[in-house]
Amino acid sequence: MNKYITEFIGTFFLVLAAGFASGEHAVLIIASALMVMIYAGGHISGAHYNPAVTLAVLIRGKIGMADALVYMVAQIVGAVAAALIVGFLKDIPAEPIVLKDTTRALTAEAIGTFALAYVVLNVATAKGTAGNSFYGLAIGFTVYFAGSLMGSLSGGAFNPAVAVGASLINAFAWSNIWIYLVGCFGGAALAALVFRFNNPDDK
Amino acid sequence: MNKYITEFIGTFFLVLAAGFASGEHAVLIIASALMVMIYAGGHISGAHYNPAVTLAVLIRGKIGMADALVYMVAQIVGAVAAALIVGFLKDIPAEPIVLKDTTRALTAEAIGTFALAYVVLNVATAKGTAGNSFYGLAIGFTVYFAGSLMGSLSGGAFNPAVAVGASLINAFAWSNIWIYLVGCFGGAALAALVFRFNNPDDK
Amino acid sequence: MNKYITEFIGTFFLVLAAGFASGEHAVLIIASALMVMIYAGGHISGAHYNPAVTLAVLIRGKIGMADALVYMVAQIVGAVAAALIVGFLKDIPAEPIVLKDTTRALTAEAIGTFALAYVVLNVATAKGTAGNSFYGLAIGFTVYFAGSLMGSLSGGAFNPAVAVGASLINAFAWSNIWIYLVGCFGGAALAALVFRFNNPDDK
Amino acid sequence: MNKYITEFIGTFFLVLAAGFASGEHAVLIIASALMVMIYAGGHISGAHYNPAVTLAVLIRGKIGMADALVYMVAQIVGAVAAALIVGFLKDIPAEPIVLKDTTRALTAEAIGTFALAYVVLNVATAKGTAGNSFYGLAIGFTVYFAGSLMGSLSGGAFNPAVAVGASLINAFAWSNIWIYLVGCFGGAALAALVFRFNNPDDK
Repeated sequence: MNKYITEFIGTFFLVLAAGFASGEHAVLIIASALMVMIYAGGHISGAHYNPAVTLAVLIRGKIGMADALVYMVAQIVGAVAAALIVGFLKDIPAEPIVLKDTTRALTAEAIGTFALAYVVLNVATAKGTAGNSFYGLAIGFTVYFAGSLMGSLSGGAFNPAVAVGASLINAFAWSNIWIYLVGCFGGAALAALVFRFNNPDDK
Repeated sequence: MNKYITEFIGTFFLVLAAGFASGEHAVLIIASALMVMIYAGGHISGAHYNPAVTLAVLIRGKIGMADALVYMVAQIVGAVAAALIVGFLKDIPAEPIVLKDTTRALTAEAIGTFALAYVVLNVATAKGTAGNSFYGLAIGFTVYFAGSLMGSLSGGAFNPAVAVGASLINAFAWSNIWIYLVGCFGGAALAALVFRFNNPDDK
Repeated sequence: MNKYITEFIGTFFLVLAAGFASGEHAVLIIASALMVMIYAGGHISGAHYNPAVTLAVLIRGKIGMADALVYMVAQIVGAVAAALIVGFLKDIPAEPIVLKDTTRALTAEAIGTFALAYVVLNVATAKGTAGNSFYGLAIGFTVYFAGSLMGSLSGGAFNPAVAVGASLINAFAWSNIWIYLVGCFGGAALAALVFRFNNPDDK
Repeated sequence: MNKYITEFIGTFFLVLAAGFASGEHAVLIIASALMVMIYAGGHISGAHYNPAVTLAVLIRGKIGMADALVYMVAQIVGAVAAALIVGFLKDIPAEPIVLKDTTRALTAEAIGTFALAYVVLNVATAKGTAGNSFYGLAIGFTVYFAGSLMGSLSGGAFNPAVAVGASLINAFAWSNIWIYLVGCFGGAALAALVFRFNNPDDK
C-alpha cells in the first residue's frame, strides 16, 4: 500500500508543477519537482510517477503485472488530483497548445520518452549503478533536456499521466491524447527492449 | 550547543538570501543557499533551519520536545540577525507584497511546506535513504520548485522563520503572519503524519 | 558490443541536444543531455561520447587502441544519426556560424577540451575518486562552463563528433572542421599528458 | 608537487571563468567552473583554489604553514596565467567596477567568504561528512548564492586570487584590492574559528 501512496504523491507534485509552471524556467521547475520526488520516494516505490516508465520497468522485469497496473492507477489518480488543485489555485489556459505537425509530435514524444526510460532503467534498476546518489538528478535532468528540446513540437510530456493532467486543465487537447499514449508507451517499450538486449546478464 | 549554533548559522544565510535575492533567479539563489547550508550543517544538527521542519521531525520522532523548542528559538534568532544585515546592506521594500486571495495563499503555503517536509523526512531521516549524498540537493530544489510555483500566490516562504525575517524587512506584512504559521505548521504536520502512516516500520 | 551501442546512444542524444537547443539556455540543455547520458552509460562504456575524450583515455592507458577506434566510429555514427533526426524535426540553420578569429577559435577549443578531458580523467578514471556519484555532474558542467565562456569564439564543441554533427546540419562550416580536429584532439592529448605527469602512481 | 600543479590548474580555470563570464548567467558559470575543478582536484590537493580558503584550512589544522604558502603562490600564479589568456581572447573592460560604499563592500566580502569557508570546512574537512559526493556541489553553489547576493555591492570575489586576476584585467580597481584582502582573509579566519569552537572533537 505504501508504494501506491508514494506513486500518488510523487505524480501529484509532478503534475502540479507541469500544470502550474510557466515562463522561461518552466521546464527546469518541472524537472526539479520530478527530481525531488524521485529522491523522496525511490526507496519505497521505485519512483516511477509515469505509466510509460512503469511499462518499461515491467518489460525489464523489475515489477509484476498486477503491481504495474495499480501503479498506473495511482499515477492517474495523482494526476487528476493535481489538475483539480491547479484549477482551484489559478486560471486554466483558454486554449490548449496546438501541435503543428502530428508526425513530428509523435516522434518527439517517442524520442523523449525513450531517453527518459533508458536513463531510468540504467540509473535506477541496473546492477552496475546500484547504490548511487545520482538517480534523481539524472532522471530529472533528462526531462529538463528533452522537454527543452521537444516542448515546441509536442508539449514535452513524455508521460501519459502528465498528458492526462494537462488535458484536464485544457493545456493539451483531448483529441491529441493518443499521441502521448502511442508515443510515450512506444518509446518506453523500445528503451526496455534496448536495455534487455544491451544488458543480457542483468536480470 | 553546537547544534543550536548550526541552526542559527544556517537559518541566518537562508533568510539573508531570501531577503536579498531579487529578479528572475531569486528562487534559485534562495534554494541554493538552503542546499549548501544543509550540506554544511546536516551532520551536526540535521539542518532544519525551519520551525515547520522541526515540528515535522518532532512528530516523526527524531527530535525531543525540549531540543525542538531550542531549535526554533535559534532559527528565529538567525532570521532576526539576517534581517538586520539585510537592512544594513540594502534598501528594504517600500511596500510588502499583497496577497490577492487569502485562501489560495494559505493553500499554497500548506502544499509547499507539505512537499518540503515530506522530502526532508524521506531523504534525511528515513532508513531507506541512509548515507545518501543527495539530501541537500533534494531539499533545496523542493524549495526551488515549490517557490517557483507558489511565489505569486503567497510569497513562497514554507518556513515561519523566513516569514518572520521577511516581515521584519517589510517584504511581508505582519498582518499576514498567521498565514505562514497556520499554513506552514499545518502542511508540515500533515507530511509527518503521512510519513508515519506510510512507513510504519521506520521508527 | 554493448559498449559500442552505449557510445552510439549517448553521442546520439548529445548531438541531438547540440543540434536542437537554441536560445539563452542552450548550453545548459546540452550539458544536461551529456550529464544524464554519462550517468546512464558510464557503467557500461565509460561514457566518452567524444573522440577527443577517447583519445585522452587511450593516452592515459584505460582503453586499448582497437576499442578506441571502434568507440570513435560509434560516436561518429551516433552524431550522423542525430543530425538526420534534427534535419527531420526542425529547420536547419541558413548559415553556419562565422568564426571571427581562427587563432582564438583554435585556442578556445583547445582550452575547453583540455578542461573537459582533465575533469573526465580525474573524476571517471582516477583511483582517488573511485565510486563517486558526481562524475556526470562534474563532466556535464564542465561543458556548461566552458561552452558558456568559449561559445562566441569557436561555437564551443570541445568534441569532434559534435563538430561533425553540427557541420552536417549547417550549424558549423565544413571548412572549419580542422579547427575542431586540431583543437579538440590537441587539448585532450595535453590533458592526458598532464594527468600522467601529475599522477605517476595511478596507472 | 602534484598538489601545487592541481591548485594552479583549478585556480586558472576559476579565474578564467571569472574574467570571461558576462551577462545574466555569469555567476552560475563561475560557480560551475569552481564546482567541476573541485571535483577534478579535491582528491589531490583538497581543491582550495583560494588563498582565503587555504588560510581557513590552516587555522583548522588540516594543512601545514609551508604547504599553505606554496598553495597561495600556486593560486596567484594560476590567476595571473588566466588573466593573460583572458587578455588574449577578449577585450578587457574599459573601466573597473565602482564600489559605491566601501563599508558595505567590505562587509559583503567578509560575509560571502565566511559562508564559503564555513561550507568548505564542513563538507571537505569534517569527520561527519567524510566520503560524501556533494562537496563540489555545495562549495560551487555557495559561490553561486553569495555571488548573486553580494555581486552588486563588492563584485563578489570571496577569493584574493580572483581579486588579483580581476584587477589585472581591469575588472576591479587596484586601489580596492585591500578590501578583498581584508574582507576575504577576515571572513575565512572567522569561519575557521567558528568551526573549531563548534567541532571541538574534530581535529
